[in-house]
Amino acid sequence: MKKVLVLGAGRSSSTLIEFLLDHAETNDWQVVVGDLDESLAKEKINKNPRGEAIIFDIFNEDHKQKLKSDFDLVISMMPASFHIHVAKICAIHGINMLTASYLTDEIKALNDEFRKNNAGLIMEMGLDPGIDHMSAMKVLDRIREAGHKLRAFETFTGGLLAPSHDDNPWKYKFTWNPRNVVLAGQGYTKFIQEGRYKYIPYQKLFRRTEVIHIPEYGYFEGYANRDSLKYLDAYKLQGIKTLYRGTLRQPGYCKAWDVFVQLGATDDTYELQDVAHLTHRQFINSFLSFNPDDSIELKLAHYLKLDLDSEEMYKLKWLGMFEEELIGLDKGTPAQILEHILKKKWTIRPDEKDMIVMWHKFEYFEGEELKQIQSYMAIEGQNAVHTAMSKTVGLPLAVSAQLILQGKMNPKGVHIPTDRDIYAPVLSELESHGITFKECEM
Amino acid sequence: MKKVLVLGAGRSSSTLIEFLLDHAETNDWQVVVGDLDESLAKEKINKNPRGEAIIFDIFNEDHKQKLKSDFDLVISMMPASFHIHVAKICAIHGINMLTASYLTDEIKALNDEFRKNNAGLIMEMGLDPGIDHMSAMKVLDRIREAGHKLRAFETFTGGLLAPSHDDNPWKYKFTWNPRNVVLAGQGYTKFIQEGRYKYIPYQKLFRRTEVIHIPEYGYFEGYANRDSLKYLDAYKLQGIKTLYRGTLRQPGYCKAWDVFVQLGATDDTYELQDVAHLTHRQFINSFLSFNPDDSIELKLAHYLKLDLDSEEMYKLKWLGMFEEELIGLDKGTPAQILEHILKKKWTIRPDEKDMIVMWHKFEYFEGEELKQIQSYMAIEGQNAVHTAMSKTVGLPLAVSAQLILQGKMNPKGVHIPTDRDIYAPVLSELESHGITFKECEM
Repeated sequence: MKKVLVLGAGRSSSTLIEFLLDHAETNDWQVVVGDLDESLAKEKINKNPRGEAIIFDIFNEDHKQKLKSDFDLVISMMPASFHIHVAKICAIHGINMLTASYLTDEIKALNDEFRKNNAGLIMEMGLDPGIDHMSAMKVLDRIREAGHKLRAFETFTGGLLAPSHDDNPWKYKFTWNPRNVVLAGQGYTKFIQEGRYKYIPYQKLFRRTEVIHIPEYGYFEGYANRDSLKYLDAYKLQGIKTLYRGTLRQPGYCKAWDVFVQLGATDDTYELQDVAHLTHRQFINSFLSFNPDDSIELKLAHYLKLDLDSEEMYKLKWLGMFEEELIGLDKGTPAQILEHILKKKWTIRPDEKDMIVMWHKFEYFEGEELKQIQSYMAIEGQNAVHTAMSKTVGLPLAVSAQLILQGKMNPKGVHIPTDRDIYAPVLSELESHGITFKECEM
Repeated sequence: MKKVLVLGAGRSSSTLIEFLLDHAETNDWQVVVGDLDESLAKEKINKNPRGEAIIFDIFNEDHKQKLKSDFDLVISMMPASFHIHVAKICAIHGINMLTASYLTDEIKALNDEFRKNNAGLIMEMGLDPGIDHMSAMKVLDRIREAGHKLRAFETFTGGLLAPSHDDNPWKYKFTWNPRNVVLAGQGYTKFIQEGRYKYIPYQKLFRRTEVIHIPEYGYFEGYANRDSLKYLDAYKLQGIKTLYRGTLRQPGYCKAWDVFVQLGATDDTYELQDVAHLTHRQFINSFLSFNPDDSIELKLAHYLKLDLDSEEMYKLKWLGMFEEELIGLDKGTPAQILEHILKKKWTIRPDEKDMIVMWHKFEYFEGEELKQIQSYMAIEGQNAVHTAMSKTVGLPLAVSAQLILQGKMNPKGVHIPTDRDIYAPVLSELESHGITFKECEM
């Protein structure tokens, strides 16, 4: 019997734990789920005889001792900063490990220890990062192995609402961590366009969108994602003319979101005064100049050079931003307050479906001829619980766990899934679970 | 004989040390100047028999021992983060101390120790903070003591160029720390306007200027300075309707500076790629979209909605921003690179004069009647060495030192100069050295 430990029983672990329990009997696995909140772990186990719920606190030495016992695999779904504590123990005791979080230098430094003890840690095994790496590398490797020269690579992913008849002009709701949506894009953005390094600051990010057309799915808008240059090495793309990584939204989203950015309503570095008495309308007003003779709508429209009947103003109105409704918080940063207001309208109904869209574009020279491959995937959720997001984040971990426990995948050392030994079997398994990429060549 | 120790012999200490040496013989003082660079300290002493130059490293225990010896006063001109190390020793050994830097919680915590040992530390005894506190409190106290009710207080200070016949369309050059000028305004800004809390993010700060008219000196523009609310307590202004603290510039400066802000050229959080081969023109281009058919001028003008013949475009051209001239750095953040380019044009000539302008506006009710007092001060430097900036930062420290050494001012505990016992004698001494405020009432 193989034993697998899942640390963290939150919403993002649902698909993973369900999959492991569903396959436990056939494969002779025991699935242990650890969480600070034992009842949450129990709920996920759902009385499955193959499952076991335990209390787990990464800062409790007794709990950490449990890690050293006879587990074959540990999957950490805890907050990203906790992974290193688990990874250190797994490295020393030669236990395989998986996470969906970004690889850090601190974790990378455990590579030798994992190898020495004949075990592997795969980081970034979710959707983005995760499926993006694997599906891109598959095509990149194929192009390179055919002897062609890569010219450009662009990749975009979006966690969106599935199309529906609805009056929501944003065509967007929170389908994952709302806080990350509100803070998205803060800092700077770097990429390479036609051989030139390009930089976009946060205050211009949502006005520097690209129009992306995805076969079958139509038009989206994409904005750049932090540091695309990090992928030069990871994807072996040195010398490429264009390298651009971005996030997809429905057309019109970014220009309206930019209103919040320009106001300063996404700032998370300081707290507003007297929040308990603040209404939605006065929240907006607190970022506008004082002028009692003008309406807040007019001040806002003039400040940001919007027409009063523009789509952006309508989107804000739909959110209730101009209502004299109390926010309902006692304190908070602008970002926390904005998130709280947005949740009132952007929380998905039980029957609503989300949608994940991923799109890659590869340009390369076949001899003298410039060619293009587009590779894309879209998947809809079933409802507000069984979302496409939880499926696409959880399944890569789940099938990787299966492959490792079945001995079909044996990573040694610390990896992200850019090696064929990892991406080929995982993508193949994902296909059998409905996560498939289509391609069109030009 | 009284002994005074000045720590830090950089450019900002010139006026202070000169003053102390000039008055040393008459007052029977010995002036010791300590710096990491002994030759710099010697240069400042300039062979004056009342002076002594020593090597001083705040992280060297032997050097710190010297602090404990028989000094009557220590003036720290070192980087702000070093003051706490000096202050701890002065507190324990009962030595008076002065700095021109902002008071921190860590330093405030030494209040009891200073009091117990019968000594005082005055922080924020420079221009801004410093003269601003003292000149404002003098009028505020007068209004309150007359039984009037304060309605609004605004205060602006600018370090500018003195008016001259010159082709510089910015009417601005670096007259103090260039890095601080480039990074000015980053973060958020808070103030109270007509009873409402208002917040301005960095990306809008330079487009939310106020027009300030100063009697005799004409029009300036002012932008808000970080957290004006901090002055609610320091100036005892709770309940005031408007509280606004800002920075003065020549009209037109802010709209042109905003071009750099919008581009992201003032970002100090990441390094640009391949800086060694970057020209001024390509530095600007790196923040613009790729489009080989359009000129960088046109791309920039379109991006930021500027006319090609606008004052802003002309100001950039005057700086040489569109020249294919190598920057001359091997690496750097956008902010470091911008500073380096600006220094090529914004370094003052030996004969150029700077100018400090400070302006306060007080509104109060005398019974039912709304009244206003404006209090203002402007002072020009003599040349690029004897600047108005070094005089207005150095003299408050110098005359405070004199008052303390002469026994005419005896602060106990930790202070900023908002108490009458401090501001009254210091302002009076400053007047005798040409730093005078005028008032007009309305």
